[in-house]
Amino acid sequence: MALRLYDLAGADPQRRFSPYCWRIRMALAHKELPVETIPWRFTEKDAIAPSGQGRVPVLVDGERWIADSWPIANYLEDAHEARPSVFGGPSGRRLSRFYSCLGDTLVLAIFPFVALDILDVLHEKDREYFRKTREERVGTTLEAFVADREQRLPPFRASLAPLRLTLKEQPFLGGERPLYADYAVFGAFQWARCVSPFALLAEDDPVRSWRDRLLDAFGGLARGAPAFDKA
Amino acid sequence: MALRLYDLAGADPQRRFSPYCWRIRMALAHKELPVETIPWRFTEKDAIAPSGQGRVPVLVDGERWIADSWPIANYLEDAHEARPSVFGGPSGRRLSRFYSCLGDTLVLAIFPFVALDILDVLHEKDREYFRKTREERVGTTLEAFVADREQRLPPFRASLAPLRLTLKEQPFLGGERPLYADYAVFGAFQWARCVSPFALLAEDDPVRSWRDRLLDAFGGLARGAPAFDKA
Repeated sequence: MALRLYDLAGADPQRRFSPYCWRIRMALAHKELPVETIPWRFTEKDAIAPSGQGRVPVLVDGERWIADSWPIANYLEDAHEARPSVFGGPSGRRLSRFYSCLGDTLVLAIFPFVALDILDVLHEKDREYFRKTREERVGTTLEAFVADREQRLPPFRASLAPLRLTLKEQPFLGGERPLYADYAVFGAFQWARCVSPFALLAEDDPVRSWRDRLLDAFGGLARGAPAFDKA
Repeated sequence: MALRLYDLAGADPQRRFSPYCWRIRMALAHKELPVETIPWRFTEKDAIAPSGQGRVPVLVDGERWIADSWPIANYLEDAHEARPSVFGGPSGRRLSRFYSCLGDTLVLAIFPFVALDILDVLHEKDREYFRKTREERVGTTLEAFVADREQRLPPFRASLAPLRLTLKEQPFLGGERPLYADYAVFGAFQWARCVSPFALLAEDDPVRSWRDRLLDAFGGLARGAPAFDKA
């Protein structure tokens, strides 16, 4: 039985925009595992209730329900040891943890740029939920939250210095070929371009070239998804 | 013949404070390689001229002179394959590149906190050189450069979020035991405490606990070095 992945979707069911789900989409492709992705909206908590929590990604493998990108990546690696490793071995797995946390931090850092734009791509039934929960979290309206994003852009780009330095030296964080470390960080940038036309990365940024290489990976899996192509 | 390492020192020849040399000191200990460290000052360019450049670390192995922490770490790994790996395998080596760049970026981020304090630990013959080159680099006096360090502290600490999140999950960046990834980042914090009493890390910060575990590693190699113990 094929794996199933609950995958955050917008009004267009093909617009899949969760940074955490993109990590898993890429990891599944890396491991050459077919998957049935199920479009899921923020308010469809019942559909994923067997996972014991209310967020995606949720992977279903037969009777097993696994939530959260890091446990899912580890599950896929262990359940399919003979397939290409997403971590690059036991030390690689431990060294990948930081990249996962870096990806989480990047999502928080990018949110003040794209928060309002997300509303435009959401399914109608999710909009009120999204605005209410996110405005409570950030303590202001989404409009006020993104108002100074142009001024925030230079320090945000400067904060990518360690990625930039690395990607001047090697094409992927994992070396000549991408690993989960790449997907964990890429998810944040793919999320951004799926929900917003805002150009987070300068055209001549090595981080952008790396992102573009990942858009092309696995037959253009990520590039083929509905997104704002100029972002 | 034992390896020799040119190691940046202060007025006290035992005060070794280069963040990049500390990476190599820890890597040599990890690989259980004895080394003769040679105290070196900024202005002793002639002593390391055979390396083809003017900065440390410089490792001398017989007739070979190797400069720069990343090439040295790779040289040690390749020349002593049978000893404990500092990278954790081929993928680990590639995944460690980012940590090296992160360490480089941390040195730049920490410099505005400790720049003036460094003068106090330098050998007399290095002081004018250090002030002149660094003031040219930062475009102001060292005194002005560090003047707002208290205000810079909260954003600096916030910028460590990905490290903090990771180190809540596992004791070292390399997992249960440290790897070069740890040493590359640790070097910046060890440098800071060797040159300045300024407390960069809050006492309850998991990053500080991790730093302290590395101070204790290899029989307290880094803890035993002259430093400001309250930093």
